[in-house]
Amino acid sequence: LEEGDPEAFREEFLAGHPYDQAKYYEKAGPELRRKMYEFLSPKELAEIFEVSEIADDEFDVYLNEMDTRYAADMFAGMYADNAVDVLNELDKSKVLTYLTLMDDEDAGEIKDLLHYEEYTAGAIMTTEYVTIPENSTVRSAMTILRNAAPEAETIYYIFVTDDENRLAGVVSLRDMIIADENAIVSDIMNERVVSVLVSDDQEEVARTMKDYDFLAMPVVDFRQHLLGIITVDDIIDVLEEEASDDYSKLAGVSDMDTLDRNPITAAKKRLPWLILLTFLGMVTANLMGRFEQTLDQVALLAVFIPLIAGMAGNSGTQALAVAVRGIATGDIEEESKMKLLVREAGTGLITGTVCGIFVVGLIYFWKHELVLGLLVGVAIVGSIFVATLAGSFIPLLMHRLKIDPAVASGPFITTLNDIISIVIYLGLATVFLSQL
Amino acid sequence: LEEGDPEAFREEFLAGHPYDQAKYYEKAGPELRRKMYEFLSPKELAEIFEVSEIADDEFDVYLNEMDTRYAADMFAGMYADNAVDVLNELDKSKVLTYLTLMDDEDAGEIKDLLHYEEYTAGAIMTTEYVTIPENSTVRSAMTILRNAAPEAETIYYIFVTDDENRLAGVVSLRDMIIADENAIVSDIMNERVVSVLVSDDQEEVARTMKDYDFLAMPVVDFRQHLLGIITVDDIIDVLEEEASDDYSKLAGVSDMDTLDRNPITAAKKRLPWLILLTFLGMVTANLMGRFEQTLDQVALLAVFIPLIAGMAGNSGTQALAVAVRGIATGDIEEESKMKLLVREAGTGLITGTVCGIFVVGLIYFWKHELVLGLLVGVAIVGSIFVATLAGSFIPLLMHRLKIDPAVASGPFITTLNDIISIVIYLGLATVFLSQL
Repeated sequence: LEEGDPEAFREEFLAGHPYDQAKYYEKAGPELRRKMYEFLSPKELAEIFEVSEIADDEFDVYLNEMDTRYAADMFAGMYADNAVDVLNELDKSKVLTYLTLMDDEDAGEIKDLLHYEEYTAGAIMTTEYVTIPENSTVRSAMTILRNAAPEAETIYYIFVTDDENRLAGVVSLRDMIIADENAIVSDIMNERVVSVLVSDDQEEVARTMKDYDFLAMPVVDFRQHLLGIITVDDIIDVLEEEASDDYSKLAGVSDMDTLDRNPITAAKKRLPWLILLTFLGMVTANLMGRFEQTLDQVALLAVFIPLIAGMAGNSGTQALAVAVRGIATGDIEEESKMKLLVREAGTGLITGTVCGIFVVGLIYFWKHELVLGLLVGVAIVGSIFVATLAGSFIPLLMHRLKIDPAVASGPFITTLNDIISIVIYLGLATVFLSQL
Repeated sequence: LEEGDPEAFREEFLAGHPYDQAKYYEKAGPELRRKMYEFLSPKELAEIFEVSEIADDEFDVYLNEMDTRYAADMFAGMYADNAVDVLNELDKSKVLTYLTLMDDEDAGEIKDLLHYEEYTAGAIMTTEYVTIPENSTVRSAMTILRNAAPEAETIYYIFVTDDENRLAGVVSLRDMIIADENAIVSDIMNERVVSVLVSDDQEEVARTMKDYDFLAMPVVDFRQHLLGIITVDDIIDVLEEEASDDYSKLAGVSDMDTLDRNPITAAKKRLPWLILLTFLGMVTANLMGRFEQTLDQVALLAVFIPLIAGMAGNSGTQALAVAVRGIATGDIEEESKMKLLVREAGTGLITGTVCGIFVVGLIYFWKHELVLGLLVGVAIVGSIFVATLAGSFIPLLMHRLKIDPAVASGPFITTLNDIISIVIYLGLATVFLSQL
């Protein structure tokens, strides 16, 4: 297919959607890709890069296959915000090389965006948007739009500025095409624009956009000067990243954006957690060692340790997940934290009591051991109660301390609760040893 | 504020964005809300309901406050797809009452959508969209658009149909305003439209839309007749729901869409998992009971059980999370399943060996017990290897069997791996008992 005729290839290939082109591009080997660089213009490749899902650490592979000037032209052809996403993953020296090879305008736009810190509104906004002065007519505004349309990332929300480039309002293209051609834009625009600050966290921005169902949102500095816009496609990516991040941390994997090809990279992402757990596990073992005598006397006690630790670990994870997700979606705010803790205490007491009674019954019918059953039951009530409280308290505390609550990951909370529950159980057992 | 003057309230209130209105509405008590029903038209309330984040089981509370006719008018005022989302949560008899109170057109649109099964493209699509015949000029198409704009959910993608209402192409409003007014639509439209079938799963649809960065997508039947469109705001909700669903299951909470106010509802969502775990925990205890003699002879053995079970449980959860997320994002396809298993086997072997060696070292230096250390180390290598394989195999198998892989939730896999690891460890210990 690829061998012969460049023209035939171009026609067939470019008729597809860029996403399909990107899939083809990623699957093609280096040799085929080198041919593609010959057949496609940098601008055409730019479109492919914008929608592709190449992993952060793999850009280098592709870029090294290209001529440096070709790559620079490709970056110039991308929307500045997307180009910055890629450039942020590269070495500083490489970025500089590409920037010097671009023309001043393109390089300037990219440089401006590179200044903003990662994970802020500034880092994901685009500077390719359309503004119209507030005193223009709908007719002249439409002319501005028509000219800007091929370059702008979206033309469906148009931001209106005053003569000092301060955000004055917003008008949707829908309103524009319904409006009379001679109407003045400031009369039809919506003055209550919801905007975000350039330094706002990207997650907050994403939440706001999702809540308000916006397709685009303006980004301003603290004096309301318009600096850029954020479009809905970037927001979807942020929301996904965030959800996948919380999920990874709950499972104790450092990231799973990409499916790694080889077991060594996969192992590297999991080992940090596992080694941390080994340490914590040794702490647990050490603590249990202090109860060796008790265990020595009633070996049957050991049999229920996985049960109790498992229940505590799981209740803690449940409470943790609810708290982390609640913080992420903005459902939990500063003033509702105390309420959550009180509720979790209640929840822990209820779930603990139900499970405890259940276990007493099971042990009584299975082993006919009432005292042992009661001991295990009480330990379960206590463990679940403490674990539930800890599971919600720790992420809330981290949030207050401005640490990402998801760092209090599943495995960490689970091990902590293992320790707590074992101490409760074996402590009780030691006290009541004579009864067993 | 609310007491006096309806007009002043209306002016102030309606100037805000519907999302802010919705927040105010939800926070207001029943009395205040009753006043709002007087002051606001059903159509105005409809806008509030469209963006509100009222939980599924709470719609009843609000609807019962309203006059039935008022509520029916409100549903008629909503976009049909959003109305259906709410109606799907109500009793059939109530839905019928509302439908009979509406005019035939509105009721018809809603009835059509109610037929589609939940979680399919049909259930989330809207029928309020704009189509233009393929042979119209851009000028006449713009007139159609202007007339349809106030009603349609989006006018930024316009779908082009042939004379039998079959989907022929798509043209963006952007292309339309750039194009010459006399151009024929079929000449400027894109014929390679990506569409979804009405019976497609909503997650698949969401994936496709996200990948292609579409703002709207057409829904067709198997003969390519256009039935509706899906807009990006619905898709964001689907993606969020899905991520939050996977997350809940990893943590073993049945759902956490809403932050419940009282501990009893919260406990109800967690108890099913905890009770299942109690049973599984008793199975573990039972199995361990068979090794009571071994434990009786070397009580120190018990001390390492939480460590080994914890490592196995966690490696399993890591592998599970990677597999579940990979399936959800479409990264893992039928042909790559075998590859994943092979890779996971490798990963399990590497992580197991590293952690195993580490533990042997720790136990040797801490307790000066080489044989016991070796025993624990070998048990850890084996447990992590098996747990990692099980953690990826089970969700893949479930996916093959068309069961949602996320059902193989975190707590389930963890407990399964607890059992496996304990059997490996105590089995080995029993065999080598004489050496200890």
